[in-house]
Formats: sequence, C-alpha cells, structure tokens
Amino acid sequence: MVQKLNIKELADSVLQGNRLSLSKALTLVESKRKEDIRASRELINNVLPASGNALRIGITGAPGVGKSTIIEKLGEKILESKARLAVLSVDPTSPTSGGSILGDKTRMEELSRHPQVFVRPSPSGTEGGGVAVNTRDQITLCEAAGFDVVIVETVGVGQAETAASLMVDYLLLLLLPGSGDELQGIKRGIMEVAHAFAFTKSDILEKSLVNQSVSDLRMALHMIHEEVPEIFTCSGVTGEGIITIWKAVNQFSQHRKKEGAWEANRREQDLKYFDTLLRKNLWLEFLSEKEVETKIGVCRDRIASLELSPQSAVDLIVEDYFKRGK
Amino acid sequence: MVQKLNIKELADSVLQGNRLSLSKALTLVESKRKEDIRASRELINNVLPASGNALRIGITGAPGVGKSTIIEKLGEKILESKARLAVLSVDPTSPTSGGSILGDKTRMEELSRHPQVFVRPSPSGTEGGGVAVNTRDQITLCEAAGFDVVIVETVGVGQAETAASLMVDYLLLLLLPGSGDELQGIKRGIMEVAHAFAFTKSDILEKSLVNQSVSDLRMALHMIHEEVPEIFTCSGVTGEGIITIWKAVNQFSQHRKKEGAWEANRREQDLKYFDTLLRKNLWLEFLSEKEVETKIGVCRDRIASLELSPQSAVDLIVEDYFKRGK
Repeated sequence: MVQKLNIKELADSVLQGNRLSLSKALTLVESKRKEDIRASRELINNVLPASGNALRIGITGAPGVGKSTIIEKLGEKILESKARLAVLSVDPTSPTSGGSILGDKTRMEELSRHPQVFVRPSPSGTEGGGVAVNTRDQITLCEAAGFDVVIVETVGVGQAETAASLMVDYLLLLLLPGSGDELQGIKRGIMEVAHAFAFTKSDILEKSLVNQSVSDLRMALHMIHEEVPEIFTCSGVTGEGIITIWKAVNQFSQHRKKEGAWEANRREQDLKYFDTLLRKNLWLEFLSEKEVETKIGVCRDRIASLELSPQSAVDLIVEDYFKRGK
Repeated sequence: MVQKLNIKELADSVLQGNRLSLSKALTLVESKRKEDIRASRELINNVLPASGNALRIGITGAPGVGKSTIIEKLGEKILESKARLAVLSVDPTSPTSGGSILGDKTRMEELSRHPQVFVRPSPSGTEGGGVAVNTRDQITLCEAAGFDVVIVETVGVGQAETAASLMVDYLLLLLLPGSGDELQGIKRGIMEVAHAFAFTKSDILEKSLVNQSVSDLRMALHMIHEEVPEIFTCSGVTGEGIITIWKAVNQFSQHRKKEGAWEANRREQDLKYFDTLLRKNLWLEFLSEKEVETKIGVCRDRIASLELSPQSAVDLIVEDYFKRGK
C-alpha cells in the first residue's frame, strides 16, 4: 500500500500534523497485509518518541446508549479549552457492533467539521466489535500529529474494555438508566477498570428512575471498590452534566500528574501490554507447530480417559519440546 | 524417600486401601525433591484409572470462620450415609494461613478417631496458604484408596479458590455474618466460582445480624449470577443447618449426574488444568533461558523510553527465538 521507502517521509509528515498523512498512516496500521504490518512497525517506532503527550479518554457503552452524541457535546467543551481533539471511533455499521445502520458521516457532524478536530471511524469488523489490535498504534499516531486529547470510542462488549483500560488514561462507561436487574448485565471486567460511570438520556427519562439507577450502581460498585468511582448523569441532547464530566477528567489527570503517577501509569500500561502480547504470541507460535498440535491432541485424549494425569502430560510435552528445540 | 522400584507396590497397596501406604503416598506427592517428583508422576499415573469415584467437596473460608468444626459436623452426616470420608485439611499452624497455634491433633477429634475416616493435614508452607499444587494428586490418591467423599479444606486466600474450583465438584464458602462493608472484603473470584455460601456461628450471633448478612450477600450475588447460589446459615457447635447443607450437596450431585454433566465437568476441569499448566510451564521454561531474560530486560527499557513499541519488541523476541531454536 505504502512503499517502504516512504515510511520515513510519512512519519515526518505525520509529525508535522499533516491530516492527509495521518489518514494514510491510520489506514496503514489497520492493514493486515504482511508488508504493511512490517511498514507499520517501522512507522510507529519512528513517531514513538514524539507520542505520549495527549490526554487519552476512553468512552465505552452498549450500542444505543448515546456515545456519539455524548462525545459531540464533550468535544465542544474540549475545544473551548483550545485543545486539538482526535476521535477514534467505532463504526456503528460494523456487523459485529449491532449498532444502527447510519453511516459514520452522519455522526458527530458538528465535531467533524471543526478544523481542530480529527474524527476517524474504525474499519468495520474489528476484533470483538470493540478496540482493534491497532488502536494503540492509532493513538500513537494521533499524538505524534499533535493532538492534545484523544477520545477512543468503543462498544462495551467482550474483552474490549480491559484492552481499552490498558491504553487510555481515563475510561468512562456510559449506561442507560434501568433497574438493578439490568445492571446485572454489565460485564464485571468493566466495573473493575472504569474510572467513572455516566447514565445517559437524563433529559428524557424519569428523575426517579435515574436516581434509583445511580443508587443501585453505587451499591454494586461498593462491593468491588473501596472508594466508589464517580457516577454521573448526562444528556447528549441538552448537554446536561457534560461539563461535570469534563471537569472530573481534568481533576483526575491533574491529580495523577501532581502525584507523579501519570508517567508511571503509562509505562505500566505499555509493559503490561508487552508482557501479555509476548505470552500470547509465544503460545501461538508454539501451537502453530504441527508436531505440538498433534501431541496436545493425544494428551487430551489420554487425560480424558484417565490414562495420564494433566501434570504428566505437561511434563511430556514441555520436556520434549525444549530437548528438541535447543 | 521411596525407592523407584517400589512405586508399583505402593500403588497396589494404596488401591487395596492400606492407610499406611496412603499416608506414604500423600507424603511422596508433597515432596519437592526431583526424584520424588518423578516417582510421584509414576505413582499417580498408576492409580489414575481407579480414581474419580468420590464426591469432592471443597470447603473454604477465612481463618477463624470455623471450618474444622463445620467439617466435623458435616463428617458425622456423611458417615451416617455409610460413606468413607477423607479430609485433606490445611494445617492451621502453617505460618502462611494466619490460623491458630493449635496443632492439627486437636482438630476434628471425633472424625479423626473414626475408622471410616482419614484426616490428612496439609504440610505447612503450602503455596498461598491454601490449596497446594499437589492437592489434585492427593485427591486422586484418596479416591484410588476407595474413599467415597473427599473434603478439601482450604483457607480462602489469594487464588486458592479458583484452584479449588478446578478440582472439586462442589465448593462451599464459609462466612462470618457481618455488615455489607465486611462482605466487600470477599474476593471476587470466590463469589463467582462457589456453588454455595454458608454463614457460620448462627448459634451465638444475633438473628437479625445473620438475616441482614444473608440479604446483603444475596444482593451482591445477584449482580454476578443470573441464578443466585444457595445461602445457608449453620453452626459447627450445635450442628444447626448442617443437614441442610449435606442435602444440598447431594441434590446438586444427583442433578448433575442425571443431566450427564458430572463426568463432563470432571473432564473439563482436567483439560482446563492441563491447558493452564502447559502455558505456565512453557512460559517458565522460556524465561529460564539467560538470553531471553536479557533480551526482555533490554526491551522493557527501550519500551519505557519510547524507543520501541511493545508490539515491535514482541516481534523481535519471538521471531528471534523461533529462528534460533528450530
């Protein structure tokens, strides 16, 4: 797609804040072609030293909760503070997200038109309908291009939240007000990792329902956290509550920076990602060997028929593998 | 400790239900000596086909919750049904369990004296103060020796509960009645995997406190499970509620057997353990190589200084490793 020789040029152009080059770069890191993947790695390593300067906000929630309208209103507040904003958004037409059939062009209309804003819908069919593997790289590129705030919009399904929590500074979960029974449907992972929660559509729903939802959620969070995270109510239509959220994000980041925890958290995220990815890729490489695959199959059968203990099976495979390889 | 040549004899003797041989075998699988570990594997594979016939009950809870007295009373009910009972118990004098300073001889006095019962305290200093790595092997040995019910007593700390849930059929968590704040201290893992919960010391605590605890726990469990697990109240002193627990365990096992889920669950546990152990041991073997360790250290530094992306670091290490080894 992009010639290997142009990578350095592309990197420089991204670093100069060229929007067209940023678009190209974002497309490159989305590609699954082998030579593009290699080029992506080179590109990322080129811009990496210039990255890391944005405030990264993750916004997640089920389809229909109103992520786009909330981001639109939040974007207005961000622009008032003279910051440049990039939005990495999940395409609602993606077959896996179960979202509306509206194309991305009709979403975040106001924001998209603003010269200080760059909106990038994710390609459809991303892993788990949520954060794509390359979202990390896309954040890096947006930061290298000089954006001060990067919003990552994800559909809160599967393991996407945990992935998101490893790449953003502040993760906000949007929820529709509902009964305790509905809260039960919230994935446990997100309850643990989100920094804050916001009930949406406060403009059209009954006050008592919203209040009940807040108190039910607080009770649930109390079982998990010693200090219950903040719970907001907001509306993407009237903009109610949005300024409170934006203030909370700023307070959070100022507090972390004052404590010296900001950089530490970023490094911890990177190293945790490195560790997880290393384990995963090693495992996949190991499994990709025909001989290993066969041996595991045989062992599983022998374990199931109580011929071999799981421990002995592991000994067999591991000892054999390392004797053979080295 | 045990001569390699005697392993077949030891296995046969265990299979004949010889208590002294069972004790020897249990000691062997606790050993960390290399030749003992090898002998253990052989022993286990020898008795494995004769294992799997017991009802395995896990009983877990914090130190002081009254595990021993509850097991003593539960044991009486089990013996009434003419079953032979083995108890694999955690030694309360273990420095890691934080229990009392009473030796194991003073615990489960009644049970220990019964000819149909075999009580085995775990050696002190077991991993995480809870289920030792070899508890699986010990269950296998007790089953091979003909016991109909095996109770595994663990201190509910760390990741011991999840380990326990992968080796027993029914996991019961014992709790002291208390306020919602105290419930907060319960590890999330155990809330997800326990089959039932029981508040202890119902004889000496106020009825209203116990009832409040039950309702708080039910609320908390409701956030996790679609169908809330059973919650009991009991006393190890008066024996109150113990028969209800025993009946529930039996109903559970009958129901699972009728559904054909009993064997399937056992196989699933074994294969999950196999998978987890294989990943873990591969990773440890990999890390044990000096060159790999050095390379990971260098990569971590370069990631921390934004010189190298985590993805590129993983590529470097994995590609290099598999090129070199094969």
